[in-house]
Amino acid sequence: MRASQYHLNTLKEAPAEAEVVSHQLMTRAGMIRKIAGGVYTYMPMGLKVLRKIEAIVREEMNRAGAIELLMPVIQPAELWQESGRWEQYGPELLRIKDRHQRDFVVQPTSEEVITDIARNEIHSWRQLPVNFYHIQTKFRDERRPRFGLMRGREFTMKDAYSFDRDETAAQASYDAMYAAYQRIFTRLGLTFRAVAADTGSIGGSRSHEFQVIADTGEDLIVYNPDSEYAANIELADAPCLLAEREPAREALEKRATPDAPKCEIVAEQLGLPLSRTVKAVVLATDPAEGPARLWLLLIRGDHETNEIKVGKLPGFGDGYRLATEAEIDSVFHCAPGYLGPVGLPPKAITVIADRTVAHMGDFVCGANEAGYHLSGVNWGRDLPEPDLVADLRNVVAGDPDPRGGTLAIQRGIEVGHVFFLGDKYSRALNATFLETDGKPAVLQMGCYGIGVSRISAAAIEQNHDDRGMIWPRAIAPFEVVLCPIGIGKSDAVREAAESLYLALQAQGVDVILDDRDTRPGIMFADWELIGAPLRVTLGDRGLKEGIVEIQARRDDQAQRIAQADALAYILERLESL
Amino acid sequence: MRASQYHLNTLKEAPAEAEVVSHQLMTRAGMIRKIAGGVYTYMPMGLKVLRKIEAIVREEMNRAGAIELLMPVIQPAELWQESGRWEQYGPELLRIKDRHQRDFVVQPTSEEVITDIARNEIHSWRQLPVNFYHIQTKFRDERRPRFGLMRGREFTMKDAYSFDRDETAAQASYDAMYAAYQRIFTRLGLTFRAVAADTGSIGGSRSHEFQVIADTGEDLIVYNPDSEYAANIELADAPCLLAEREPAREALEKRATPDAPKCEIVAEQLGLPLSRTVKAVVLATDPAEGPARLWLLLIRGDHETNEIKVGKLPGFGDGYRLATEAEIDSVFHCAPGYLGPVGLPPKAITVIADRTVAHMGDFVCGANEAGYHLSGVNWGRDLPEPDLVADLRNVVAGDPDPRGGTLAIQRGIEVGHVFFLGDKYSRALNATFLETDGKPAVLQMGCYGIGVSRISAAAIEQNHDDRGMIWPRAIAPFEVVLCPIGIGKSDAVREAAESLYLALQAQGVDVILDDRDTRPGIMFADWELIGAPLRVTLGDRGLKEGIVEIQARRDDQAQRIAQADALAYILERLESL
Repeated sequence: MRASQYHLNTLKEAPAEAEVVSHQLMTRAGMIRKIAGGVYTYMPMGLKVLRKIEAIVREEMNRAGAIELLMPVIQPAELWQESGRWEQYGPELLRIKDRHQRDFVVQPTSEEVITDIARNEIHSWRQLPVNFYHIQTKFRDERRPRFGLMRGREFTMKDAYSFDRDETAAQASYDAMYAAYQRIFTRLGLTFRAVAADTGSIGGSRSHEFQVIADTGEDLIVYNPDSEYAANIELADAPCLLAEREPAREALEKRATPDAPKCEIVAEQLGLPLSRTVKAVVLATDPAEGPARLWLLLIRGDHETNEIKVGKLPGFGDGYRLATEAEIDSVFHCAPGYLGPVGLPPKAITVIADRTVAHMGDFVCGANEAGYHLSGVNWGRDLPEPDLVADLRNVVAGDPDPRGGTLAIQRGIEVGHVFFLGDKYSRALNATFLETDGKPAVLQMGCYGIGVSRISAAAIEQNHDDRGMIWPRAIAPFEVVLCPIGIGKSDAVREAAESLYLALQAQGVDVILDDRDTRPGIMFADWELIGAPLRVTLGDRGLKEGIVEIQARRDDQAQRIAQADALAYILERLESL
Repeated sequence: MRASQYHLNTLKEAPAEAEVVSHQLMTRAGMIRKIAGGVYTYMPMGLKVLRKIEAIVREEMNRAGAIELLMPVIQPAELWQESGRWEQYGPELLRIKDRHQRDFVVQPTSEEVITDIARNEIHSWRQLPVNFYHIQTKFRDERRPRFGLMRGREFTMKDAYSFDRDETAAQASYDAMYAAYQRIFTRLGLTFRAVAADTGSIGGSRSHEFQVIADTGEDLIVYNPDSEYAANIELADAPCLLAEREPAREALEKRATPDAPKCEIVAEQLGLPLSRTVKAVVLATDPAEGPARLWLLLIRGDHETNEIKVGKLPGFGDGYRLATEAEIDSVFHCAPGYLGPVGLPPKAITVIADRTVAHMGDFVCGANEAGYHLSGVNWGRDLPEPDLVADLRNVVAGDPDPRGGTLAIQRGIEVGHVFFLGDKYSRALNATFLETDGKPAVLQMGCYGIGVSRISAAAIEQNHDDRGMIWPRAIAPFEVVLCPIGIGKSDAVREAAESLYLALQAQGVDVILDDRDTRPGIMFADWELIGAPLRVTLGDRGLKEGIVEIQARRDDQAQRIAQADALAYILERLESL
C-alpha cells in the first residue's frame, strides 16, 4: 500500500467524550469514526485490524473442527419467545416491528437461531458432535454506550455453538474450544488469562472468560501467581480469614458514635481497626405469593459485598432488592447507618453472615439506635448464631488461597467467553436427536463467544504509550512502514524506498510506503500514533553511507542497519514482534 | 474438507413456497435455511459460495483503487432526515427506535453515512479522488419477500461511493467502476450484460445495470445482437415504427363494438389487426396548488405502456395516478373501455400520443360512447394534433434499432448497478472541499452496488439442469468432489482417495472427499444437486485397471482417466470450468 493512494487522516486531539486510551487513539489515528452513540464506522485501517483478528479466529475455529455459517442479523421474535429470552432480556435487546407489525430483534447473540437450525438439521447421533460458528454484526442497546469499541452498541462477535450427545461429550467440546481460545489469544499476541466466570444471563453451569490483562480493564481478576488458579472476582471464592471462632474477651458495650453511619467513621471514633467492624445490609426478596421476605447480610467493615454471590443465595433465585426504609423500620426500629444483628425480634429477618464474620469475636456493629454502636459483640453470647453462613464478599489482594499461597488481583478486559450450556436452550426449543436406541434425546450445548471488535480496543489498552499505539505484529494495521525523507526531491531516496517496498511485498510483508512527502516530524508522529511494529527511515544522508534506520515501535532506540541487510533484518525482527 | 467432518444435509423435496429454481436447489442442497420471510441462514456451503463471490469483488475493487471500510448496519435517522430519504423512502426502510426512543434505520444502502464521513474526512482537493466501499449486511423490508436469495429482506451487498472534484473526474471514477464490474462478472464465470438503466430512487443522472442473463430473470433487457447497445426495457428508447404520417384513406366511421372494452376484442370484432387500434389511458397529476390535471395517453393497441417513461413526462415529476371514474366522466361523459381522443372539449385534458400513434392514419379508437368505437380516425382531419408526442411504450422484439439493425429482448437478473450521482447527496449534506483557489466546492459522487448474495442465486438461475446446480468453478462451493465407492470396505479405494485428496489440496484445489461411505446412488445424486464442477469416482474395479472416472458436471459423459494422470487432468480441466 502507498500512503498517497490510501486514506490517512490523523487528528491532533481526541474527542472530549473519549474517556479511555483505546477510544482516544483509535479516533486520533482515524481507525474509527462515530456515527451515533456506540455505533462506529471502521475506517480503512480499523477494518484492516478487524479483518486480521477475524482471520486468526477463523483459522483456529476451523482447525478445532468448527464449521462456519452465517446467521441473520435480524431475527424473528418467535424464537426468542420460545426460549423465554424475549421476556427475560431487558432493554439491551433492540426490538423491531417490520412493515406487517411482526416482532423482530437485532441479534445480541444467536442461541435461539442456532438451536432452531439444530433441531431441523440434526436427526441422528451420527451427525454429532458438531460445532457451528459465525462472525457477524451484533447489537446490544447499552444504556450508556461509551469507551469506543470497548462498550459499543453495534459490534462484531464470533459466536460458536456446539451440539453433543451427552454431558461428557459436551465437556470435550468445551475443552476443545477452551484450547482453541488459548491458541487464538496467543496468536493475537496479547497477554491474557483464562478465568473461571459467572454464567450470567446466557445461563448454563460452567464458564470461563478470556481476559486481556490491562490496568484500564473493567473486570477484576483474582489469581494465584504461583498456580493456575484464576477467576473473575464475581465468582472467586473468598475464604474465611479466621481459622476458627475468635474467643470472647470483651464485654458487650454500647458506644456513642455520633454521625457515624459508615464503618470507616465508627472505627476511627472508637480507635479500632476497620477489620473489627461488621456492616449490615438489609435486602428483601419478593416471593410469588405472600409478603416480602427480609434478609440481614453481615460483612466485615473492610470487605465489599459481592452482588453475584448474593444473587445465588438460597431464596434469591428470582432476584432481590434493597429493603425499603419502612421494611427496615418494621424490624430494626432504627434508620440505616446504625443497624446491627443484636436484639432482633425472632423470625422477623434471616441473618446471613459472611464466612469471616461468622468466626469473628469482640466485633463492632450498629446498636439499632441512631448515634450508637455496640463493641465486644460475640456470637452465641450476645446474639444467636447466624441463620446461614455464606461467602458474601469480594476477594481482596492478600487473601490466602485455600489451595495454597496467596491471592492477587489484576484488571482485565473480557474478550472471550466459553459457556457449558447443557440443555437450557435445546430443551426450551425441543431440539432432540435419535440416540443409538432409536429414542429421542435432548442435545447438549455449549456456546463460545469472542468479541472481535473489542479485541482491537483491548489490544491498545494493553499496548500503548504516550505517543500512541504499539500493535502486536499479528494484528497491526501495517507490519512495516517505510518513511522516506524528502521522497519528492531525492531520486536516491525514492529508488531505495521503492526497491525495499517491492522486496517486502514480495515476501508477503504488510508494508506501507509513506510517499506523501510530508515533513519527517509529521510523518514520524503519525506512525508512532498508528503504531506499526517497525518503521524504516530512508534519508539521503544515511543512504550515502549505505545505512537505513530501523525503529521497532516497542524499542527506545533505532538501529542503523546496512541498506543491503535491511530486508533480512526486517524479516527476522518481525518474528519477535 | 472431509464430508464426514462437514455438515451435508440435502433434501429430496424443496419447500412448497420455493417458486424459483435457485430457491429450490439452494434449499435442497442445504445451502440456505429460512429463519423468517426473506431472512435466511447461510449454511456452511452457502456461506462458502458467498465468501468466494466476496473475495473476487474485493480483489477487483482494490485493484481499481477503491478503499474498504465498514459502515454500521444500524444508522441514525438524523442523517436520513438530512438527505430527505427518511420521508421519501417507503415502508421498505426498516425503522427502529432505540431504548431512548431515538430513531434509527437498518441500512438498505449507505449514501448518507458515507457522505457524512466524506464531509468530515475530506478537506482538500489533494485528497481526491477517493472511492470507499464496504461489503455489509443490508435490509429492505420487501412487502412480499420471495424467490429465496433473489428477493430477500436481509442480504449482503457491496456498495462503493466515489468522491470527485468535478463532473469530468466523477465520470472517470464511474468508468473505472464500470470496467471493474466487467472484470468482476467475467471472473465470476457468469454470462452477463451491462445495460443502460433508470436511476430510480437512488437518484443521479446516469446509470448502468449489470444483468446476469437468465430466462427466469425479472428484468427485460433490450439489446441489439449486432452492436453494443443494451438497455433495461424501463429505459430503452422505443422508436416510432412509421417513418412518416400515414395518409388518410378511410372515412371516419362509428362502429358498434358491443362488450369490447379491450383493443384485442375490438380488433377481432372489426376484423382488423390489433396494430390498427389505439388504446386510451387517462391519468391525473396533482399539482401543489389548484385542481388535478388530466392527461390522455394514446398507445397502439399491441403495445405496452412504460410506467417509468410516463413518470418522466413534463408535469409528472411529483408522481401521477389513474384518473378517477368521476374525473374521466367529467371530460369523456363515458365510462372506461370506450374512451378516445375524438370530440373532446378543448383544454379539458392534455393529449399525449406515443411516437408511433402520432404517425398512424385510419386508426381505431373509442367513440366515447359505451359499445362503440371509431374507425378511419385521422389526426388533423378528425381531431386536433396531439398536444405532445412522446415515447410512452415498451420496446418489443423486432423493433428497429434507430442506430441500425433490429432490437431483441432477453431476460436478466440485476446483480450490479453503477450510478452517476452528481451532487444529490453531497449538496443535501453540505459535503464540500477546498479547491485549489481556496474556495469550497461541492463533492461530485457516484455509487456502485453489487448484490453479493443475489449473485449466488442468479448463478444458479443461469446454470442448472433438472438434476441440480452447475457452478462456475470460481464460485463453486467445492471445485472437486472425490467419490470413493465402498471406502469403508476397500483399502485400495481409501488409499487412492486419500492420496488424490492430499495431492489436490497441496495444489490449492478446493476439494471435498466424500468419506461418508454412503451408497453410490445417494452420493452421486447429492453431488449432482450440489453441482461441484468436477466429480472423481474411485472404485475397486476401476482401480484394478488403474482407472478413475472423472465427470465434469457440465458434460454428458464421464472420462476414464489413468489414475497416474488424474491429478494433471483435473488441474487442466478445472481451467476451463
